[in-house]
Amino acid sequence: MSQGQGGAAADNGVSPGNVPVCYYGPAGRVPAALERRVRAAELFLRCATCGLAVLAAALLGADRQTRIFFSMEKEARYSDMQSLVFLVIANGMAACYSLLQGARCMVSILTGGVLISKPMAWAIFSCDQVMAYFTISAVAVAMEAAMIGKYGNTQFQWMKTCHLYKRFCAQAGGAVACAVAASLNMVGISLVSAFNLFRLYGSGKGRK
Amino acid sequence: MSQGQGGAAADNGVSPGNVPVCYYGPAGRVPAALERRVRAAELFLRCATCGLAVLAAALLGADRQTRIFFSMEKEARYSDMQSLVFLVIANGMAACYSLLQGARCMVSILTGGVLISKPMAWAIFSCDQVMAYFTISAVAVAMEAAMIGKYGNTQFQWMKTCHLYKRFCAQAGGAVACAVAASLNMVGISLVSAFNLFRLYGSGKGRK
Repeated sequence: MSQGQGGAAADNGVSPGNVPVCYYGPAGRVPAALERRVRAAELFLRCATCGLAVLAAALLGADRQTRIFFSMEKEARYSDMQSLVFLVIANGMAACYSLLQGARCMVSILTGGVLISKPMAWAIFSCDQVMAYFTISAVAVAMEAAMIGKYGNTQFQWMKTCHLYKRFCAQAGGAVACAVAASLNMVGISLVSAFNLFRLYGSGKGRK
Repeated sequence: MSQGQGGAAADNGVSPGNVPVCYYGPAGRVPAALERRVRAAELFLRCATCGLAVLAAALLGADRQTRIFFSMEKEARYSDMQSLVFLVIANGMAACYSLLQGARCMVSILTGGVLISKPMAWAIFSCDQVMAYFTISAVAVAMEAAMIGKYGNTQFQWMKTCHLYKRFCAQAGGAVACAVAASLNMVGISLVSAFNLFRLYGSGKGRK
């Protein structure tokens, strides 16, 4: 791996200028190609997360269906189910957060600088971790409610509702699918930020 | 920070023997004190996760309550609710996994070696990440079911059940609390393994 070669060369006293394969930015020695790929991946993931989270929240927010049962009108909305409210909130937060972090990535790429110090890398990493676990939890909670809505639970007399509100459930299903994709992107982002943080520690020498 | 000093010293050609503050094992330069703390934290977290996950699974597995409604006997078990079955499976897997990984940590500490190569660090990191997200999801799902059990959902006519099966719900609540603690430990473990992996990349020079 070129990085290992570059790291070894630098440790042996070779000046950075003699090892052009490595990027000698403030974030530490990593191959320039890897640095570019990591930055591009981060920007792509943050933009994709933002779009998917907005879509999920919008689909849920606009999701409603009215049915008439024995002359009584009943409307199903996302706000009837706490898990869907939680999902909308989580996706709204993920969208705003991804937008801000995406802007930071874009500035970083355009200016050519790596806006990373250890405290900043720790802050970004911590926020990314929290958001990743938060969005994954929100999706899991919504999927559990969706499963109960679709299949019910006879033991505890929780009735199926999706056969009554088919369109509502279909749209909520689409929103949950977008939220799943957004949360997987957040997991990817948290990996990137973990890489960006922990490469600031250690020497880059693994036992091969 | 001593690590930064040690890293700089080594980059300037000082032999490892002259910088006793740093650990020069195969996992890369990190301060010896930090290395010891990371190993101890990992072992503690893995043992605690194992214990808590076993406790959660055992509490749920033994959780049952029989009530008589209109001369009909009804028994509530964890297996009546898919989310609790999922939680038992997730905690069983987390316990087995933590036991194996704890044994690896113990061997590593007793032999004084650092059994880490990049592929192995990647494997441990990936498994830890999967287990962390898996256990967090299982807890989120179980908590959603618990909330429905406790408060019901009038819009979809999902009735409260916890006032009918109080002892069952109390025991399940204890199990979920243990599972929450186990999953938080798994998150901590995934951070440690991320540190152990990504410190193998980069030079340890952050912009201060």
